[in-house]
Amino acid sequence: MGLIVQKFGGTSVGSVEKIQNAANRVIQEKQNGHNVVVVVSAMGKTTDQLVSMAETINSHPSKREMDMLLTTGEQVTISLLSMALKAKGFDAVSYTGWQAGIETEPIHGNARITDIDTTRIQDQLGCGNIVVVAGFQGASIDGEITTLGRGGSDTTAVALAAALNADKCDIYTDVTGVFTTDPRFIKGARKLAGISYDEMLELANLGAGVLHPRAVEFAKNYHVPLEVRSSLEHENGTIIEEETTLEQNLVVRGIAFEDQVTRVTVCGLPNELTTLSTIFTTLAANGINVDIIIQSSTSQEKTSISFSVKTGDLDETVKVLEQFKNNLNYEKIETEKELSKVSIVGSGMISNPGVAAEMFEVLANEGIQVKMVSTSEIKVSTVIEHEKMVRAVEVLHEAFQLSKQEAVV
Amino acid sequence: MGLIVQKFGGTSVGSVEKIQNAANRVIQEKQNGHNVVVVVSAMGKTTDQLVSMAETINSHPSKREMDMLLTTGEQVTISLLSMALKAKGFDAVSYTGWQAGIETEPIHGNARITDIDTTRIQDQLGCGNIVVVAGFQGASIDGEITTLGRGGSDTTAVALAAALNADKCDIYTDVTGVFTTDPRFIKGARKLAGISYDEMLELANLGAGVLHPRAVEFAKNYHVPLEVRSSLEHENGTIIEEETTLEQNLVVRGIAFEDQVTRVTVCGLPNELTTLSTIFTTLAANGINVDIIIQSSTSQEKTSISFSVKTGDLDETVKVLEQFKNNLNYEKIETEKELSKVSIVGSGMISNPGVAAEMFEVLANEGIQVKMVSTSEIKVSTVIEHEKMVRAVEVLHEAFQLSKQEAVV
Repeated sequence: MGLIVQKFGGTSVGSVEKIQNAANRVIQEKQNGHNVVVVVSAMGKTTDQLVSMAETINSHPSKREMDMLLTTGEQVTISLLSMALKAKGFDAVSYTGWQAGIETEPIHGNARITDIDTTRIQDQLGCGNIVVVAGFQGASIDGEITTLGRGGSDTTAVALAAALNADKCDIYTDVTGVFTTDPRFIKGARKLAGISYDEMLELANLGAGVLHPRAVEFAKNYHVPLEVRSSLEHENGTIIEEETTLEQNLVVRGIAFEDQVTRVTVCGLPNELTTLSTIFTTLAANGINVDIIIQSSTSQEKTSISFSVKTGDLDETVKVLEQFKNNLNYEKIETEKELSKVSIVGSGMISNPGVAAEMFEVLANEGIQVKMVSTSEIKVSTVIEHEKMVRAVEVLHEAFQLSKQEAVV
Repeated sequence: MGLIVQKFGGTSVGSVEKIQNAANRVIQEKQNGHNVVVVVSAMGKTTDQLVSMAETINSHPSKREMDMLLTTGEQVTISLLSMALKAKGFDAVSYTGWQAGIETEPIHGNARITDIDTTRIQDQLGCGNIVVVAGFQGASIDGEITTLGRGGSDTTAVALAAALNADKCDIYTDVTGVFTTDPRFIKGARKLAGISYDEMLELANLGAGVLHPRAVEFAKNYHVPLEVRSSLEHENGTIIEEETTLEQNLVVRGIAFEDQVTRVTVCGLPNELTTLSTIFTTLAANGINVDIIIQSSTSQEKTSISFSVKTGDLDETVKVLEQFKNNLNYEKIETEKELSKVSIVGSGMISNPGVAAEMFEVLANEGIQVKMVSTSEIKVSTVIEHEKMVRAVEVLHEAFQLSKQEAVV
């Protein structure tokens, strides 16, 4: 008999029927003899509806009041799921974030969990109850209701699993696991049986939406074994753990990609030691999130710096650069839109130095020009023309033999 | 500069527009130089929608989980109203019941307030903030979320006004005040400028829906001056206080009425000392709510007992009586449906002994037969045929000169 934390996302509890279905998945583990703590998100589109109602009242609602508003979403789900479990003959008790002992920083909209007092949950588990906890939310030490930001319910589940020393944390979602790449775009995409925390972290940061990076980081830090699996289909999902023993021979584990990337080049900057820090400190201070950065010196006196931003941030980026033109002392700005980022991720790269070169060769053979590159120990990201994004993923998926691995059941 | 507690019911915050309107009413008092605490209900039909969703999942949802579910309704309203106030340039902060320090019995569905810790609210008022509190809800000392039952938001408002020693508690609703009788049925119905707590308590208990009896009782016990007024129209409402100085000459202050009344007569009971207690203990133990009771002895050995119940409870009443026929030892049950209760209420009755007689005479002159009577110091209730209900109210309204008082502005 162990302790399992299950998390059901918004689409997995999006209707009364789906709540019934989630209840069945909970009961299944209970009947297997496990204690179960369930973490749930708000039902389907509830959050979007609440946000749009707020925006009709106040175009810039305060983060505190947004937290107050949005946390009602999960509170509805916990009560309904508990009712469903009771209707099926199982004792259950629901807790909001603050009731479950989830203490956060006193920050609204994007607080980090600072402590979890599990007394109440453990008491209820001791009585044989299934405990249903509202994800995404907590309270500061002075009793302010807070939220954990995007992907917050994943974080709640993993944090609870860590605090309760759970045997496992199952993330139920609308896909059957983590794929080598997005199966909506690439036919050969294949579900992975396992992946390491580090690989998952890279994939999550590179736009694979299945898990939030903060939750993966939490799981890695506290050694919580995760499984991403389908709430509707009864098949094994993808196990995320320290160093996956499955498919050890894989050099590349997955391919992530995202569009809406723009390259900004600031030309004719003074070639000084402080140039880089000045430009990116200025951008950061104005809330611009920069991704890949490349510096190329054109002469001893002058240098150019290129960086990529989300296309949605382009106007603001240009505005900030123009505002600080005198400080930054550049000659001109060039921008290139309609770009995409394609990244390969895999722990095996550490011991295989030729992987980046192989990636560039595969792309070159397809006539795809690499405009920017960024690497880490376990990933290589390239920025290419958007219209060649899907083709690039296809050829890389093929070249690194991702679809040829034996099927996972 | 004083402190005003304002309460807006579900219909007064039923849409984004109405929330804006409520915000304007709050701001008006703030601009008059007062500190303001606002108590709100769930938006319009929210509670009904949540209840029906719960019932599709569990036909007998636990009261604890219903409290968890329903308290989200007011939480949505407090955040939206705070956003509206901020959009209009006023500092506001929202609190759920537990955050506002409202401690209740550890009972779900119908808890009573046991204590209010006003520290947080007073701190915020001290900072110049408008404080917006979720009505209807609180928390037990062990952190369980509870609700106060029907009319709970009125109770929250009055209890907060008492705890904060507020100068006034304004109940904003969809009518302009307390009327001499229901203006939807009686053309001559007139808004009262004032009414005493005791009179309001009788009217509330007799079916006048404008205020919940528990809230009136609370206001009476803590001497909180109430005003019932319209959230849409800018006119004075009705003041409810200890002994109203206005219209002192009124013997009858108002007329309440309700339909769906049935008379049940249990015939041929043994004429013993314990008969009355046996029959009503049995009914109470089975959850039957009895209103007026009349005993008439037909002989030294036998007696009959009549009582009124809500027509909706009739089947259950008969079932219980038949189930315990051997214990109760009666001969037969007779029932009469299609009845209504009409009551006159007024503090002036205490010093005017002929009021009940005058009521009976007025009804007799109209050919209306009184089937049951019940009196208190300040009210007389009669049960009559339903089809004569409105006519009875009309002639009583006329006879006691309720429409002839000078108009209240």
